[in-house]
Amino acid sequence: MSSTTEADAESVLRLVTPSLDLKRHKGQAGKIAVIGGCREYTGAPYFAAISALKIVSSFGADLSHVFCTKDAAPVIKSYSPELIVHPVLEESYTVSHFSEEEKRQVQERVVGEVDKWMERFDCLVIGPGLGRDPFLLECVSKIMLLAKKFSVPFVVDGDGLFLVTNSIDLVNSYPLAVLTPNVNEYKRLVQRVLNCEVDEENAEDQLRSLASQIGGVTILRKGKSDLISNGEIVKSVSIYGSPRRCGGQGDILSGSVAVFLSWSQQLISGHESLSENPAILGCIAASGLLRKATSLAFTKHKRSTLTSDIIECLGESLEDICPAS
Amino acid sequence: MSSTTEADAESVLRLVTPSLDLKRHKGQAGKIAVIGGCREYTGAPYFAAISALKIVSSFGADLSHVFCTKDAAPVIKSYSPELIVHPVLEESYTVSHFSEEEKRQVQERVVGEVDKWMERFDCLVIGPGLGRDPFLLECVSKIMLLAKKFSVPFVVDGDGLFLVTNSIDLVNSYPLAVLTPNVNEYKRLVQRVLNCEVDEENAEDQLRSLASQIGGVTILRKGKSDLISNGEIVKSVSIYGSPRRCGGQGDILSGSVAVFLSWSQQLISGHESLSENPAILGCIAASGLLRKATSLAFTKHKRSTLTSDIIECLGESLEDICPAS
Repeated sequence: MSSTTEADAESVLRLVTPSLDLKRHKGQAGKIAVIGGCREYTGAPYFAAISALKIVSSFGADLSHVFCTKDAAPVIKSYSPELIVHPVLEESYTVSHFSEEEKRQVQERVVGEVDKWMERFDCLVIGPGLGRDPFLLECVSKIMLLAKKFSVPFVVDGDGLFLVTNSIDLVNSYPLAVLTPNVNEYKRLVQRVLNCEVDEENAEDQLRSLASQIGGVTILRKGKSDLISNGEIVKSVSIYGSPRRCGGQGDILSGSVAVFLSWSQQLISGHESLSENPAILGCIAASGLLRKATSLAFTKHKRSTLTSDIIECLGESLEDICPAS
Repeated sequence: MSSTTEADAESVLRLVTPSLDLKRHKGQAGKIAVIGGCREYTGAPYFAAISALKIVSSFGADLSHVFCTKDAAPVIKSYSPELIVHPVLEESYTVSHFSEEEKRQVQERVVGEVDKWMERFDCLVIGPGLGRDPFLLECVSKIMLLAKKFSVPFVVDGDGLFLVTNSIDLVNSYPLAVLTPNVNEYKRLVQRVLNCEVDEENAEDQLRSLASQIGGVTILRKGKSDLISNGEIVKSVSIYGSPRRCGGQGDILSGSVAVFLSWSQQLISGHESLSENPAILGCIAASGLLRKATSLAFTKHKRSTLTSDIIECLGESLEDICPAS
């Protein structure tokens, strides 16, 4: 039996978005780091990081970081001077001639570079454009452990989900983990964890089981309606119709979830009476905002709508729903 | 005797452009790869790939790929985070000190990198900014053989036509090959294949003979009127007057032909009653759209119209002819 309720995404957006308080200083809300970007992929981490920045920028600078490989860094930097890009990740080909001991040292150095910053981040996005290089993914596993040690929330998308699906322990029972699978990624998660196929007839129940089976992580299943569960409640977001499938929407979503999750956490930590789950609120807010922005971008650009056009609409969409003044 | 008919390019555009079906998910239509881009040239492959993306973007993600050399990749990536750029091609100077055996291995690796993706592509564009390095062109020959093995259609332009003109066998009798020569490239093709000079008096008949002589490939001869033939029929597209000759128009055209060819193929495979040739339809649609976009861009930017301005007009032009809703 389904107990899904359509979330009131616009109210959630208004609830979690902080007012523009002149006394805030930079970095007080929503400092995000994207772990992703390799020789092959540079667009996805950029989209995630710039989306986060577009939402939080009014609160300060230095708010959106990317940790990527040395090859990817100059390219991602060239997309925008607004991002802080750290060229620290390493792929197998750069260590192929190293001894095991040297490889271990490289890994330690990589994780150390992220460690220096970890406490300052309000949320990580792990996976956009990460690629599937085994050496790199090993480092990222260690970064996940580090985030858990510091209780930093993280959103896992793209190749991060490939990693997590093969090593569920990395997120198991971590309540600050959010997974944002698309159709195919969700299918593999269900097969791996529930040992069965996706059941569209009982989509809500299956999602709840899946999230519960992974120890109460939050899962945002992207689709015509976005479905969100932490293993207890299930919420759906369907406003502004089915989003057009232009590439990179998943990256925008992961960056947005990170911001709204961190804002929700901040809000709830200040109001003991609020019993809401910050990960659920973050997912609802991000899903609602992306849907609004996609629909707005499509009105403007029709068939030729690109990911960048949707990102350009994030600010206007947030302003529409939740005016700054 | 000429049996050319002016094609109704706008009707063809409306016929082949898929409706925006909400159930589609990413990559279901028009996944294109451009093979091109070397140390010297990076603009042409970008223009071809971004043009394709502007036309198909509302249908999905990861739709426009570029396979280029390692030097070209960071630059092409930096033009737009929307493209997937694979730094896999090699020029002679990187293998000059290699043994023949080592060179063969590099070539195998290059072709292998494209092979991994080949089945997912709906059409290739071979040639924009490819350069004429002998080692690189050898690899590209092998990529053409691979495309034929998987029955993936390809559009040959620019330096790809230089390669093909010298090795006609690469495309001979492949019905899914489209050549898009400009004045000079056409002249060399005629000389090479028909062993004579271009005959403007009998342009249609000569084009038909040329396409027939190459075993029924489709040729789009760019000019004041675009002429299109597969060795049987000849069609012309003259709408929106003679296009202004700003550089890079050929690249826009090659990317657009690739999209419309793949859409035409998809359309025809679903409708057995349609006896049209997908390559011919793709050429007519692309020629019509480019002419419209060029004329629109010129109205806006007059003498200072750049290639990018025309690309910016692709969406609006398609929307004018064939509204999304």
